Amino acid sequence: MPIVELHVIKGYSAQEKQRLGVALTNAVRFVVPAAPELVTVVIHDISDQNYYRGGKVRQPARAKDDPEHIVRAFLSDMGEGAVESARKRLSPDFVMQFPGTAPMRDLGDLGNWAATRYRRIAKTYDGFDAMQGDGDAAIVYCRGTLSGEWTDGSPFEGIRFIDRFEIQNDLITRQDVWNDIAETRAQA
Amino acid sequence: MPIVELHVIKGYSAQEKQRLGVALTNAVRFVVPAAPELVTVVIHDISDQNYYRGGKVRQPARAKDDPEHIVRAFLSDMGEGAVESARKRLSPDFVMQFPGTAPMRDLGDLGNWAATRYRRIAKTYDGFDAMQGDGDAAIVYCRGTLSGEWTDGSPFEGIRFIDRFEIQNDLITRQDVWNDIAETRAQA
Amino acid sequence: MPIVELHVIKGYSAQEKQRLGVALTNAVRFVVPAAPELVTVVIHDISDQNYYRGGKVRQPARAKDDPEHIVRAFLSDMGEGAVESARKRLSPDFVMQFPGTAPMRDLGDLGNWAATRYRRIAKTYDGFDAMQGDGDAAIVYCRGTLSGEWTDGSPFEGIRFIDRFEIQNDLITRQDVWNDIAETRAQA
Amino acid sequence: MPIVELHVIKGYSAQEKQRLGVALTNAVRFVVPAAPELVTVVIHDISDQNYYRGGKVRQPARAKDDPEHIVRAFLSDMGEGAVESARKRLSPDFVMQFPGTAPMRDLGDLGNWAATRYRRIAKTYDGFDAMQGDGDAAIVYCRGTLSGEWTDGSPFEGIRFIDRFEIQNDLITRQDVWNDIAETRAQA
Amino acid sequence: MPIVELHVIKGYSAQEKQRLGVALTNAVRFVVPAAPELVTVVIHDISDQNYYRGGKVRQPARAKDDPEHIVRAFLSDMGEGAVESARKRLSPDFVMQFPGTAPMRDLGDLGNWAATRYRRIAKTYDGFDAMQGDGDAAIVYCRGTLSGEWTDGSPFEGIRFIDRFEIQNDLITRQDVWNDIAETRAQA
Amino acid sequence: MPIVELHVIKGYSAQEKQRLGVALTNAVRFVVPAAPELVTVVIHDISDQNYYRGGKVRQPARAKDDPEHIVRAFLSDMGEGAVESARKRLSPDFVMQFPGTAPMRDLGDLGNWAATRYRRIAKTYDGFDAMQGDGDAAIVYCRGTLSGEWTDGSPFEGIRFIDRFEIQNDLITRQDVWNDIAETRAQA
Repeated sequence: MPIVELHVIKGYSAQEKQRLGVALTNAVRFVVPAAPELVTVVIHDISDQNYYRGGKVRQPARAKDDPEHIVRAFLSDMGEGAVESARKRLSPDFVMQFPGTAPMRDLGDLGNWAATRYRRIAKTYDGFDAMQGDGDAAIVYCRGTLSGEWTDGSPFEGIRFIDRFEIQNDLITRQDVWNDIAETRAQA
Repeated sequence: MPIVELHVIKGYSAQEKQRLGVALTNAVRFVVPAAPELVTVVIHDISDQNYYRGGKVRQPARAKDDPEHIVRAFLSDMGEGAVESARKRLSPDFVMQFPGTAPMRDLGDLGNWAATRYRRIAKTYDGFDAMQGDGDAAIVYCRGTLSGEWTDGSPFEGIRFIDRFEIQNDLITRQDVWNDIAETRAQA
Repeated sequence: MPIVELHVIKGYSAQEKQRLGVALTNAVRFVVPAAPELVTVVIHDISDQNYYRGGKVRQPARAKDDPEHIVRAFLSDMGEGAVESARKRLSPDFVMQFPGTAPMRDLGDLGNWAATRYRRIAKTYDGFDAMQGDGDAAIVYCRGTLSGEWTDGSPFEGIRFIDRFEIQNDLITRQDVWNDIAETRAQA
Repeated sequence: MPIVELHVIKGYSAQEKQRLGVALTNAVRFVVPAAPELVTVVIHDISDQNYYRGGKVRQPARAKDDPEHIVRAFLSDMGEGAVESARKRLSPDFVMQFPGTAPMRDLGDLGNWAATRYRRIAKTYDGFDAMQGDGDAAIVYCRGTLSGEWTDGSPFEGIRFIDRFEIQNDLITRQDVWNDIAETRAQA
Repeated sequence: MPIVELHVIKGYSAQEKQRLGVALTNAVRFVVPAAPELVTVVIHDISDQNYYRGGKVRQPARAKDDPEHIVRAFLSDMGEGAVESARKRLSPDFVMQFPGTAPMRDLGDLGNWAATRYRRIAKTYDGFDAMQGDGDAAIVYCRGTLSGEWTDGSPFEGIRFIDRFEIQNDLITRQDVWNDIAETRAQA
Repeated sequence: MPIVELHVIKGYSAQEKQRLGVALTNAVRFVVPAAPELVTVVIHDISDQNYYRGGKVRQPARAKDDPEHIVRAFLSDMGEGAVESARKRLSPDFVMQFPGTAPMRDLGDLGNWAATRYRRIAKTYDGFDAMQGDGDAAIVYCRGTLSGEWTDGSPFEGIRFIDRFEIQNDLITRQDVWNDIAETRAQA
């Protein structure tokens, strides 16, 4: 029955602490095969007047936005054609890599690329996986199936896809996309 | 400067504690934007004679094998054609999903499927991402590029792929694969 | 100088925490021969938004009523003839065992039994001992002396008695009584 | 899921720590209605070179003997007529109070008192309750039934009894006894 | 990266806790050569209803005044000739030791002693050092240079001095003074 | 009854931990007027395989030598004329400031300076005060009285002195000296 105590400077919201509670629980379970309900996490909020580093009080860093929420919001914007809103979620050095084309940096290029492949597309999600990488970026995966209309107007659905995102400073820095579109077209 | 204290019953190896140290550090960093070197993890090994639940001593659960190591070993076996060894790393209810075919349960089926697509294939890895899911399974992603020989003997390389694995009880229960093979062939 | 730290979810009253402070102090002193003033108990109230088990927030269980208070109230009711009030403090499966008779389940039976022995009785208490048993029940002992009037109207006093109570879910499940009434009458 | 951490100077045996584990668990459960298996006790053995009071190292006090064991050994000695051995378990200011007689200080007096009541007696135990009192003494109760032979040689059995002991400095300072002997004889 | 946790009963001000944070940081750095910013101090304010010693709640002792502030205020009073105010900062058993004279107990005697040496004097401070001694007294040192006018009206400046103060119960109990006045006059 | 817990990587000696125990006790007492025996310090030695910063194991920094011991050894060397040994205890940028002369950097210069003042000198110590400064240096004060022989062979004794030392990296970087030699000669 592992017990995790986290000491942080006071200032995180209930939701942010919930995210910490889940992430720490899963971090323990990554190594120790304890049932989730046997992993206890206790967060000690330390008032800033009770925390000293080098004898000086410190302020808590603002929590990161939930990377999965950032990705979901970006995907939602893109699904609704809200490209300007989606663009605000991207880092200036954003790069995206789609099947069968060179890396792209602008959402406009993506539109051009897509236009040669399908008239309309929508994503159905099977699941998200999110984690902090060893480096600065958080990693978010989402996977599921694509449905839509080919350029000739015929419909498609159930085409598997997976996206991998990197997020830094609450902005998406990278998107990598894989899917079975070409496989499906080859079989058609 | 968040501080994590983990209390576990004594019995984990240095390597297992290192894995806990890294996982807990990243769990904090998933929410709190602290530089890694400002996240401290202290593990308190509790002698089994010093730990009581319900007034009774308890034994530590054996650590899970490192899911990433399990996946790397499986991929290495498969790369070397050591199918029998690879098979031992799979759960009895193992399922794999490759592009353009129905789910398969046996590594032999995979060989048949591949035979229609390429004569020889090798993976170059760009990176692994591993995490504990909210459920029982650990998730491991690996991504990189494929090189090899088509069925007609012509070579290919640099074809992007990504694999997603689920691991439970130190056995692989699921593998999902995406890649640009069809895209590449369509462009050829 | 043993130090006890108790971590509980916030929600216990000052009085309940005082009871925990005393019980934990005595638990240590049951084994370690430290003077009471060298046993320190620190209670950490954990806000429910800071406590996670299995990654989920939890609510604190309502504290048990003080078992000694329950017994004192029952004894007070019985001393005042407030049988209905006393009855509310009993579990449906309450059993009482008095000297020289079979186990009884109803306070009315007790009245009948007593009527053959004394006309009036009162208890003077020398002390109470209360503890949690290893099972679900808390145990409360009270001891002292009985005074009153025999059925013939003659008075008695200073007759030693001891009662043992078991309490579960804030209700008395069992009462065992021993006393020197028969001894006294035999000597009379 | 309350968590108790006890910090003591290193030096207690596994058995003594087990007693602490149980006593602390029950102390919590005396107030908080948690299932036993949800109460965790962690004992931190502090090396004497890691513990300072007033800047000075301290030695751990030798643990008290288990008061229940002391009482069981005394009762066993008495049952076997090993009066000299039993006497060594008594404090110089030992007092015992039996039904129908003045307080006695010497085990020899007890023999004289008993001789007028029964020829032979044995105890069958239903249970022991042990606890640290708020004062210096630990309290041990034992209860059960008596069997034996009256002075006329006729047998008896199933007579309820309860003993209350006080223990200080590993010696019994007081014994109080109640039983149904007189009640039984009166009914005979 | 040493971590200090201090548990005190709630009631100290932010400023008092800052003083504790600095003193504890320096205590660690006195032995461990860690950069200050790698020493973390966390203060746990324990509500008085969450702290028990001998099973009883306790009140926090009022913090000591900052000994350095006491000395600075005394020196400021003396510099301004506010002898009555300065006197209130002295313990009844105050003793002061100046160069070339017997110990003095009254600030008036100091004036007489000074009158034979200089007409006017002022202190420029280079630094203060303050610490708790192993005994009851806190120790404060201040050092710097003296400037002023000799009894003949000629000026002086840059004469080194050092004062050592002992403080108990927020009052100065002892002052020892060394300086280069005689050396300077001898060289003149 | 303040409680200090110090978490450090394992590797400090009993003596070094004793120094930490005393320093932390005095740090608390500098602010909280607790009797020393009511300040508890518990040191948690963390095995290096149980301590992670940024997910990496760390090695404990070697403890600083006791600054007071360094000063006592230096003073002892100087008292015995062991100038070469004394010199090894000095930092390359060592500076000393004695009464009535410019700052000196070499112990040889000190000998020349002293030769004009006394033929022989010895120190009797009344006390040492040692502390970590807010900066990198530890500060050690020693005070007492000087005895010896003037250049004309006449004896002196009981002349007050105080030395202030700064120590960094186990080497003395600065010595400041004040005494009543000139005052005594002026009165002679």
